[in-house]
Amino acid sequence: MLKVEHIGIAVRDLSKSIPLYEKMLNTPCYKTETVSSEQVNTAFFQQGQTKIELLEGQDPEGVIARFIDKKGPGIHHIAFEVTDIEAEIARLKQEGFVFINETPRNGADNKLVCFLHPKSTDGVLIELCQERAAR
Amino acid sequence: MLKVEHIGIAVRDLSKSIPLYEKMLNTPCYKTETVSSEQVNTAFFQQGQTKIELLEGQDPEGVIARFIDKKGPGIHHIAFEVTDIEAEIARLKQEGFVFINETPRNGADNKLVCFLHPKSTDGVLIELCQERAAR
Repeated sequence: MLKVEHIGIAVRDLSKSIPLYEKMLNTPCYKTETVSSEQVNTAFFQQGQTKIELLEGQDPEGVIARFIDKKGPGIHHIAFEVTDIEAEIARLKQEGFVFINETPRNGADNKLVCFLHPKSTDGVLIELCQERAAR
Repeated sequence: MLKVEHIGIAVRDLSKSIPLYEKMLNTPCYKTETVSSEQVNTAFFQQGQTKIELLEGQDPEGVIARFIDKKGPGIHHIAFEVTDIEAEIARLKQEGFVFINETPRNGADNKLVCFLHPKSTDGVLIELCQERAAR
């Protein structure tokens, strides 16, 4: 894995959280994006090599809403950038890790993404991502 | 803020989580350290500019144990590196953010650290850290 590409944070209301994070991080939100396949609205902030990705669910029954119901708003996942997502999936399966989706799908920010199941990673939702243009 | 210096992950048992993270991240744990002031045992992995810091509580009534009781093992905090922690504390207080400790204290990995209260940061525990040698 190359680096922490982003940290995903579940929020209730982007219209409140974007100005809060702009003040806290002292940097502007440089992009918002709706990811229809995941039913989330996202907002991005750059911090060194790593992005902070705020995630607001569109669906009150969706994954972000369910996460917030269970744990409250907060850190949702860590995404690691990889050069070859399919090779990395094969390596991790070989090591016994379990995936939520083994077939990479289109995520936010022009990425191919897949998620490891928290049950195999000490409770941490881990995303692997690869820039789509690089394939 | 300069970068995401590390991501802190609360685990139940370092002796199990260190080999798990070594397999997952495909990189060795390069350091373990006990931080007596925080009553935690830590283990570090490098990923690009950012470290993954596993945190095992020493005290069954301590902050890590209480976090795990409430939310389960998982991502505990995000630490941002700053060049001047006292200036950054002053800036954030001016913006209305609330700190758990306003006076920086010694943390793991030769850092001065302070924590913002999650009630002022959308539920995310945020650490500011500054290399001690740089002061």
